[in-house]
Amino acid sequence: MMKLTILGCHSATPKENKHTTSQLLEVKGKFFLIDCGEGTQIQLRKLKIKFSLIQHIFISHLHGDHFYGLIGLISTFRLLGRTAPLNIYGPKGIKEIITLQLKLAKSWTDYELHFKELEGTIPELIFEDENVKVNTLPLDHRIYTNGFLFKTKPKKRKINKVSILGLDLKPFHYNQLQNGFSIQLENGNNIENKELTLPPEMPKQYAYCSDTAYNETFVSEIKGVDLLYHESTFLEQHKELAKKTKHSTAKEAASLAKKAKVKQLMLGHYSNRYNNKNDFIKEASTIFENVILSEDLKTFSI
Amino acid sequence: MMKLTILGCHSATPKENKHTTSQLLEVKGKFFLIDCGEGTQIQLRKLKIKFSLIQHIFISHLHGDHFYGLIGLISTFRLLGRTAPLNIYGPKGIKEIITLQLKLAKSWTDYELHFKELEGTIPELIFEDENVKVNTLPLDHRIYTNGFLFKTKPKKRKINKVSILGLDLKPFHYNQLQNGFSIQLENGNNIENKELTLPPEMPKQYAYCSDTAYNETFVSEIKGVDLLYHESTFLEQHKELAKKTKHSTAKEAASLAKKAKVKQLMLGHYSNRYNNKNDFIKEASTIFENVILSEDLKTFSI
Repeated sequence: MMKLTILGCHSATPKENKHTTSQLLEVKGKFFLIDCGEGTQIQLRKLKIKFSLIQHIFISHLHGDHFYGLIGLISTFRLLGRTAPLNIYGPKGIKEIITLQLKLAKSWTDYELHFKELEGTIPELIFEDENVKVNTLPLDHRIYTNGFLFKTKPKKRKINKVSILGLDLKPFHYNQLQNGFSIQLENGNNIENKELTLPPEMPKQYAYCSDTAYNETFVSEIKGVDLLYHESTFLEQHKELAKKTKHSTAKEAASLAKKAKVKQLMLGHYSNRYNNKNDFIKEASTIFENVILSEDLKTFSI
Repeated sequence: MMKLTILGCHSATPKENKHTTSQLLEVKGKFFLIDCGEGTQIQLRKLKIKFSLIQHIFISHLHGDHFYGLIGLISTFRLLGRTAPLNIYGPKGIKEIITLQLKLAKSWTDYELHFKELEGTIPELIFEDENVKVNTLPLDHRIYTNGFLFKTKPKKRKINKVSILGLDLKPFHYNQLQNGFSIQLENGNNIENKELTLPPEMPKQYAYCSDTAYNETFVSEIKGVDLLYHESTFLEQHKELAKKTKHSTAKEAASLAKKAKVKQLMLGHYSNRYNNKNDFIKEASTIFENVILSEDLKTFSI
């Protein structure tokens, strides 16, 4: 399971109760930060998570509403005495922006700060550990932008503790069972795997796509994902503006969700011109049924 | 008169209700922004002032808690369609930090953005208009830092509208009176200036000194100012820490205020380690009587 907390889901300029884009994704006790608008560190404090558990930050693009909070977060980590390394994945140029500011402030971090600068125009694997893989999703925006696809890895079958009661299993039996094999006991009896095990949790997939114009080129990459976050800066009434600024409308986000047959669509990156967010749901629902709204500080299970 | 609004008065890292340094000084309808910590634009929105009236921003130094909100503010001004020019005064390097980010975001401002980069180590005049002069106050911190001294200009005497009733004054008489001269009427009568005029508002002086170690070298510059804002990051119990980090204690701020014979001292840039801000007042009051505390979103008349 993954747990997604929206830190900010508004576009362009932050306001008192409208934070710009940032999301925190939890996978097996590790936290991945996706984008980091101004004030993200204050939003993070409200969650009361241990900052050292955030070791990977993914920045989609270098527009301010997606990364102006990064330098402040890096500085705060330093001031709090962080020792855990921090890895930042983002467009080429991000390292220069951050290091220039650390240099002029004479405030190098005491922890390791690694940058992986992205320039690719086709999806690439940029992170992998025992639980999750992260791939880029090159998007179509005014400047170089990536979405990110988080996939948890398949797990082994679980031993059903009730079923094995009274059986004299050896360590290799456990191994065979977890890997899906049936076993033969010492007395010669064969037991089917599914009599002694439970199926593992299904791998989960989360696709983050912001900011982007409607673009079908990456549909195959996000086919059937459990949750697609797709920006919907505008409603159809401002379709021309969406086209001009390389953003999407709620209807376009829904069309992509439908085409990619995702399980659920989450909208966000709302323009401040709209007062009623339910209009986004209404518009998207005409195309794709399972739509939800992102909301600052709300947590979703994937 | 000047009107000073504290946007943030806390040091190091911003928290939900503790904003890092920024102040807004109003002089005759013009607004001067002094420092710009992360989230300053959100604080500014709460004041509901017209953003185009802010045309001059003074940055003391390149530590994050004093300028990480600047790039966001510049971007927001652009997104709101600003046309008024913006002038930024700050340490050498500030132009590179800002322009690098605007370049990589392909988001040049549509309004004029001017930088005056500071490197001087003695006070210099950096801004002057019909109402106010601004001088630097080179401070003593870990990196190159300036305080700023705002002085309003002497005004002409005010005509007392009640006293001149029934007198047949010509335009040149008004001019003479405003400039402090007595006048002679057409009938040959002399009238003393003070019978027909009121004294002008006294020039006001506001000195902003943050961040700095205790340092007497600029005492003569701030002699007798109406209000001295002097950082007091620490209390005396952490005097060694103040020394090591080139900050001041409340007692040191008060000692400087006493030495400079200022009219009033305002403390601020509080370390987050202290829960009770009244301890700062208590400590400073043992040395200097007229002490007040800065407080986020509070406005003071000078």
